Amino acid sequence: MPDALTLAADLIRCPSVTPEEGGALVLLERVLTASGFACTRVDRNGTPNLFARIGPRGAARSFGFNGHTDVVPPGDPARWSADPFSGEIRGGMLWGRGAADMKSGVAAFVAAAVEVAPRLPADGAIVLTVTGDEEGDATDGTVALLDWMEEQGEAMSVCLVGEPTSVEQLCDTMKIGRRGSLTAHVTVTGVQGHSAYPERARNPVPALARLVDRLSSHQLDEGTKHFGPSTLAVVTMDTGNPASNVIPAETRATLNIRFNDLHTGASLEAWLREGAAKVATEFEVSVELTLRVSGEAFLTPPGLLSELVSRAVEAETGRRPAMSTTGGTSDARFVKAHCPVVELGLVGPTMHQVDERVEAAQVGDLSRVYQRVLEDYFA
Amino acid sequence: MPDALTLAADLIRCPSVTPEEGGALVLLERVLTASGFACTRVDRNGTPNLFARIGPRGAARSFGFNGHTDVVPPGDPARWSADPFSGEIRGGMLWGRGAADMKSGVAAFVAAAVEVAPRLPADGAIVLTVTGDEEGDATDGTVALLDWMEEQGEAMSVCLVGEPTSVEQLCDTMKIGRRGSLTAHVTVTGVQGHSAYPERARNPVPALARLVDRLSSHQLDEGTKHFGPSTLAVVTMDTGNPASNVIPAETRATLNIRFNDLHTGASLEAWLREGAAKVATEFEVSVELTLRVSGEAFLTPPGLLSELVSRAVEAETGRRPAMSTTGGTSDARFVKAHCPVVELGLVGPTMHQVDERVEAAQVGDLSRVYQRVLEDYFA
Repeated sequence: MPDALTLAADLIRCPSVTPEEGGALVLLERVLTASGFACTRVDRNGTPNLFARIGPRGAARSFGFNGHTDVVPPGDPARWSADPFSGEIRGGMLWGRGAADMKSGVAAFVAAAVEVAPRLPADGAIVLTVTGDEEGDATDGTVALLDWMEEQGEAMSVCLVGEPTSVEQLCDTMKIGRRGSLTAHVTVTGVQGHSAYPERARNPVPALARLVDRLSSHQLDEGTKHFGPSTLAVVTMDTGNPASNVIPAETRATLNIRFNDLHTGASLEAWLREGAAKVATEFEVSVELTLRVSGEAFLTPPGLLSELVSRAVEAETGRRPAMSTTGGTSDARFVKAHCPVVELGLVGPTMHQVDERVEAAQVGDLSRVYQRVLEDYFA
Repeated sequence: MPDALTLAADLIRCPSVTPEEGGALVLLERVLTASGFACTRVDRNGTPNLFARIGPRGAARSFGFNGHTDVVPPGDPARWSADPFSGEIRGGMLWGRGAADMKSGVAAFVAAAVEVAPRLPADGAIVLTVTGDEEGDATDGTVALLDWMEEQGEAMSVCLVGEPTSVEQLCDTMKIGRRGSLTAHVTVTGVQGHSAYPERARNPVPALARLVDRLSSHQLDEGTKHFGPSTLAVVTMDTGNPASNVIPAETRATLNIRFNDLHTGASLEAWLREGAAKVATEFEVSVELTLRVSGEAFLTPPGLLSELVSRAVEAETGRRPAMSTTGGTSDARFVKAHCPVVELGLVGPTMHQVDERVEAAQVGDLSRVYQRVLEDYFA
């Protein structure tokens, strides 16, 4: 078994840009099988996924890790200071696409699991779920793994997602939930006409302005104990009418809502449709909404799992992590339906950027934190 | 001297698309000179203009006609049922670009002036001002003629503009004024950011929506005795931001105001700037306005001139014309500063369109109305 840093570098060398497997899950399966894990590839619709367990199926205490080996495209390689898939260690840093998000996190929990496996109690198991589709649509990744687990009677009692949650120092922040995200496209249709005779037209522009003003002015909530206030941002309004003497027939807008656990995609959709219908009546126009909820809000309230992880971080680093619910979505939103879940990992600011990198020493440090989490859990 | 219809057809055959003279003013000058008019070409910056007078300069009763021989482009000639510059008479119609707007009107008043000229009283004069720049910027057209007239001690006591004001029947409508028109371009600039963290950005979109809603909701006035209510139409709002996770830095809108004589370009500019400043403060964004007043509102209150014209129309057609202030701008907005002015002419709906045409018989009918106006004026 290679150490965490070596495994991370090996994983970076696998060009696993979503949806390509790139050799990454094959590598993990070989390493884990050699260490006694029972591995199953749970591919769905061409998306590669790996399930691995050591310890009895249905163990009373089953600790899960979740992560992904797919990465976003590197963009123009010429803009990188090294080959994005070299996995080079230089100047104390591990370089490459996936170094932060999140091949090093996967390597760290795999190394920790392999280390602790020989000392598992009789009622203990470690379960690893690693997908090759987190950066894409995520429809055939962790969701497929969880579906398959349910069919097979496999389970995790708790789960830690190894996403790069740290802001400045290793493990300074853990996530115990995430806001939901909803995007809505609004199209207002009226009746075209001449600017000189607006009474003969039905201008959709003021109707959209009224709707946007109302939605933007509304305070969705004031936040909760663990979440900031939900936010709504109208990001564009577009008509594309170059003629100042013509009233257009149609105009459009797009808005994005990041919402806490006081709302659901459905409750927000109802609110938006009510607002749209009101404006449609007031202006005698048609208002169409197309919505997409890319993730519901979720929270694992502070408790046994977060306390376990916090204490392990403190023991290894001397600091307790902040508990955060900020940021974008991750596969934790799917795991949440299965068991309590938190997220903890490396320092993330370079993820998705050119010259993505992490401090090389921190890969092993993170693995030791994960190892202590496991040891404390099974103690 | 050809009759009005023949002269109209001859003028249509001159391809005088703005700013080309196309032979149209040369033709008029030849016809008028032959009939005893003193003609002067008053060209400015390449724009052709023609001044013609018969009777003494500074006559106590000087009746003016104003018109233009330039035309808008025909567009794709293949879409016309005949050559747009053929001046063809077919099926009782006179066809071609300028048939309605307004070569036939010019031909009608030239023919009327030539007819009445031999019978002018000693203190009477007829003044014709014909420009080749009404459809363009109009900066070197009628304005230049009026400037030149002032320098030369030339004057009109009253003026009739021969624009096609009729809606369905010949001379069913005369114009005694026009609304003003103002176009404003609004640019709102904030601070770009991520949709997930709107508190770190300053989104210009809701600020623009608020401004547009306020301006659109405001009733400028309820109209006056001779004008309908002023109108404001926001014709476009544009951001061009394709990314739903990005708050844009800038967004824009364009609005058009058609205003009656309760307002001026300056009073509306002050009102718009006040509204913009208020929104800029409320949203902590910058709001820039670029304004263009293409014409101020003006009115020749019903009185001697409109009554003279009305009676002449009634005598020739049996109907009195409606007095209107609707529609777009014309050079009457410039003449207004010089003397009382009304507009009366052919049935206009095909102007600026493919297959522009007028009823051939109405060209002579209109010329007879103009002739009676002159005869009554000098009686």
